[in-house]
Amino acid sequence: MIDRLMARIEALNCPVVVGLDPTLEMIPEKMLVESAKSFGETPEAAAFALLKFNRQVIDAVADIVPAVKPQIAMYERYGLDGIRAYLMTVEYAIGRGLLVIGDVKRGDIGSTAQAYAAHICPQPLFGHKFEIWNADAITVNPYLGGDSIAPFLDVLKERDKMVFVLVKTSNPGSADIQDVLIAGAEARPLYEHVAELVAGWGAGDGLVGEHGYSKVGAVVGATHPEAGARLRTLMPRTFFLVPGYGAQGAGAADVAKFFDKNGRGCVVNSSRGIIAAWQAEGKGADRVGRCAREAALRMRDEITAVLK
Amino acid sequence: MIDRLMARIEALNCPVVVGLDPTLEMIPEKMLVESAKSFGETPEAAAFALLKFNRQVIDAVADIVPAVKPQIAMYERYGLDGIRAYLMTVEYAIGRGLLVIGDVKRGDIGSTAQAYAAHICPQPLFGHKFEIWNADAITVNPYLGGDSIAPFLDVLKERDKMVFVLVKTSNPGSADIQDVLIAGAEARPLYEHVAELVAGWGAGDGLVGEHGYSKVGAVVGATHPEAGARLRTLMPRTFFLVPGYGAQGAGAADVAKFFDKNGRGCVVNSSRGIIAAWQAEGKGADRVGRCAREAALRMRDEITAVLK
Repeated sequence: MIDRLMARIEALNCPVVVGLDPTLEMIPEKMLVESAKSFGETPEAAAFALLKFNRQVIDAVADIVPAVKPQIAMYERYGLDGIRAYLMTVEYAIGRGLLVIGDVKRGDIGSTAQAYAAHICPQPLFGHKFEIWNADAITVNPYLGGDSIAPFLDVLKERDKMVFVLVKTSNPGSADIQDVLIAGAEARPLYEHVAELVAGWGAGDGLVGEHGYSKVGAVVGATHPEAGARLRTLMPRTFFLVPGYGAQGAGAADVAKFFDKNGRGCVVNSSRGIIAAWQAEGKGADRVGRCAREAALRMRDEITAVLK
Repeated sequence: MIDRLMARIEALNCPVVVGLDPTLEMIPEKMLVESAKSFGETPEAAAFALLKFNRQVIDAVADIVPAVKPQIAMYERYGLDGIRAYLMTVEYAIGRGLLVIGDVKRGDIGSTAQAYAAHICPQPLFGHKFEIWNADAITVNPYLGGDSIAPFLDVLKERDKMVFVLVKTSNPGSADIQDVLIAGAEARPLYEHVAELVAGWGAGDGLVGEHGYSKVGAVVGATHPEAGARLRTLMPRTFFLVPGYGAQGAGAADVAKFFDKNGRGCVVNSSRGIIAAWQAEGKGADRVGRCAREAALRMRDEITAVLK
């Protein structure tokens, strides 16, 4: 996955990931009404509308961006129907040639993390193996420490997958724990310590791809440009997944320093700024896809311009 | 939920939670084979076997313990079929009068956490409200900070539910981040800072129950008795959910100091030690339930003995 991701970014000259985090408020009224006609006023109708919406976005961006990042919470909220829409979104995106980063932020003790690894690893059952979740990569939460990450590393050693470990998240509240100053010769924020752990976890045998980047990536919010620059130095072999662009407030100048000196090592995610772009400017039946495509291209151009 | 939980603990004189974290290795061969006969060698068969196993455990402990804690990862690993087994386990346990703590450890930025709140809150859809996940309480991960917890607090202010925030987890790797010493007049581990945050989050209007305990609880691993005693002092109004008893190595003496001076303020979870007890000692068709019940009663007696 790390090499596939880098190859696709290079081929498309586009380090943009489209976040598939739809809420019903982002979906055209007509699409929702039609879905309710087919499935009743039910969670199934909501889930189907999310899926239909995602397909329009995916069709519109599949040839210009390397990857999409569905946020599982937006589907999980509707239970089984929602989870089915998540799974079908993943399948549809892969079918269109996109890489899929499942934004699941799971994290638990070792034996449990092994179960969560099903998101990137087939499950052995009755002597067979079943691909259940089938993401190319997932996000994971590091609060439980190294033995909670180890089961994912075991998978990565065998399979062409990635994980992105939360280091410094894009939200203001990330300061509450991630920015806490830790004791030492020089006080520094906790996220720097986490960054060193992530770099260490990712340095193991079988974890580094052909461009020198590890299968163990990091989530670093675009809204913290200074932290990003510093973390780039602390994690030279770590690929960054950078959320927070656009609707959360960060721009191209903010993310420039998250890339390495060759303009590599980073993908930038935008969700609302792309998938809900039609709400600001869209007219016509194809507006969801057309506006998403325009917004993704604009973001690509903004970022590649500052990387030159 | 906090008052219901305390009332049930008191009525049963039993601060024991049964963790429903089954793996297929814990399930009697015959149960698995029968399930595969009905559903083929599929994830559906695995999920049905988990559900059937859980029902036997639930039937055996429903009148002696206040709550069960299904670990969602053990179901999520089998995709839609697994999630269905999780949902049916929750429903079955509630039907038997048990409180259900969904061990989901979710955590994400505010807008996403709002979606995850569906685990304890109905989802508004087409002018109706749908109960989707229906747990009485869930576990949540604090790494993303206060604004990632706020949507859950909003729910707790309106509804009779709880969250348990991870503070110090039971696994050895928890030291990697949770034990990092933070800067200050006196160096102290990060988890103490997290404990203060949790105490603060739980002190808000509408969040404290009639016995003085908050709807915002904390997860504190039984495997760290000294940390537990210290955290009891730092979080006097915080109810503890204590995993790590039994199979993970902690005993009754270890957890005694997690309780307040009245022997309240804490529930202790055991998973493998109860649900897999039949593997060590069980014979006969009813061995799963019988051994689970005996193990739960033994654990109850061990803990209530040290609380006297």
